[in-house]
Amino acid sequence: LTRIAVFASGRGSNFRSLARAAAADDFPGRIELLLSDRKDAGALAIAAEFGIPSAVVEDGKPRGRLSPASEASLLAACREAGAEWICLAGFMRILGAGFLGAYPDRVVNIHPSLLPSFPGLDAQGQAFAHGVKVSGCTVHLVDAGVDTGPIVMQRAVGAEGARSADELAARILAVEHELYPAALRRLLEEPWERRGRRIVFTRNTEVGP
Amino acid sequence: LTRIAVFASGRGSNFRSLARAAAADDFPGRIELLLSDRKDAGALAIAAEFGIPSAVVEDGKPRGRLSPASEASLLAACREAGAEWICLAGFMRILGAGFLGAYPDRVVNIHPSLLPSFPGLDAQGQAFAHGVKVSGCTVHLVDAGVDTGPIVMQRAVGAEGARSADELAARILAVEHELYPAALRRLLEEPWERRGRRIVFTRNTEVGP
Repeated sequence: LTRIAVFASGRGSNFRSLARAAAADDFPGRIELLLSDRKDAGALAIAAEFGIPSAVVEDGKPRGRLSPASEASLLAACREAGAEWICLAGFMRILGAGFLGAYPDRVVNIHPSLLPSFPGLDAQGQAFAHGVKVSGCTVHLVDAGVDTGPIVMQRAVGAEGARSADELAARILAVEHELYPAALRRLLEEPWERRGRRIVFTRNTEVGP
Repeated sequence: LTRIAVFASGRGSNFRSLARAAAADDFPGRIELLLSDRKDAGALAIAAEFGIPSAVVEDGKPRGRLSPASEASLLAACREAGAEWICLAGFMRILGAGFLGAYPDRVVNIHPSLLPSFPGLDAQGQAFAHGVKVSGCTVHLVDAGVDTGPIVMQRAVGAEGARSADELAARILAVEHELYPAALRRLLEEPWERRGRRIVFTRNTEVGP
């Protein structure tokens, strides 16, 4: 089983969907560790509920880039747990080259839009204000940019009739909870390769340049 | 019946889908005129097939912004035909403020991506190279930008397993042929309003800011 660490800053609903999926006998990975940058993160209680070890690395800022010391602490914790893959699940911090270099193409994130539309904060609010009729969510590998990495899976969500950004966000979140475990499973279970910035699952007939 | 002019530069497959839809007894509009900037456009033969009057306004350049004289000719032709709405269907030219000011929020376009992702030329090639797993098409009102206007309808198209940009384009085109007549029908038939850059069909429960 592939060993996984999950990073979360918030209530942890995507972490819960991953933990639930990973508890299945046939899941190809196991969550070894939950790390948070906030000691009030709801994700910590979920970790306890699932019997997953957890730790908090606070570095004094609520958002943005982590301090080098915090990033080193997170990396040390992942290595100690033997983590091979990192899943970001509502982790509100930007990982630097030091961390990403230790896990090349092995850090995954979920984002509540159909990237490349609406990267960054409050994607659902951006999408609502823009007036899109279709939005969705994206699981992608993390690179040095903000929500710019290669796309693993996406799923569309209808935005028509949504009366607020919150209503749109709720529709998307329900799909996120299905998509993230499905995408993680495929990454761990199926053959795939990167071609430029395309991720191609080679068990498909998906070939070409 | 609302009078419509369609502008096309190419083979005219989206024009054909509009002409076919508009031929139905219950369609709320009628295509009075097909205008092209190219005398070799396949759309001209389709106009003849459907008994729709057509005209060509060539201005010496194959792409980009129209000359003021060409734009004035197109506008005069639309006015003479009594056109109330303009549908761009593979029209490879940029309309200026002179034309758009004469038809405020009454010029519609279809674009082969889920805008705001991949505006401009070769949207399908851009999407394929970016590695998206979901793309689609967008019907939008035309403003002064390139594919930046308010979104009327969108539909998602799966990109997974597409082996080339052409294969993705073919999948999207099949959906364009359904979406464009459906969106035009809604614009003509249903109550709607603009709220900022959002288009809200008010027969829905869609309310809010």
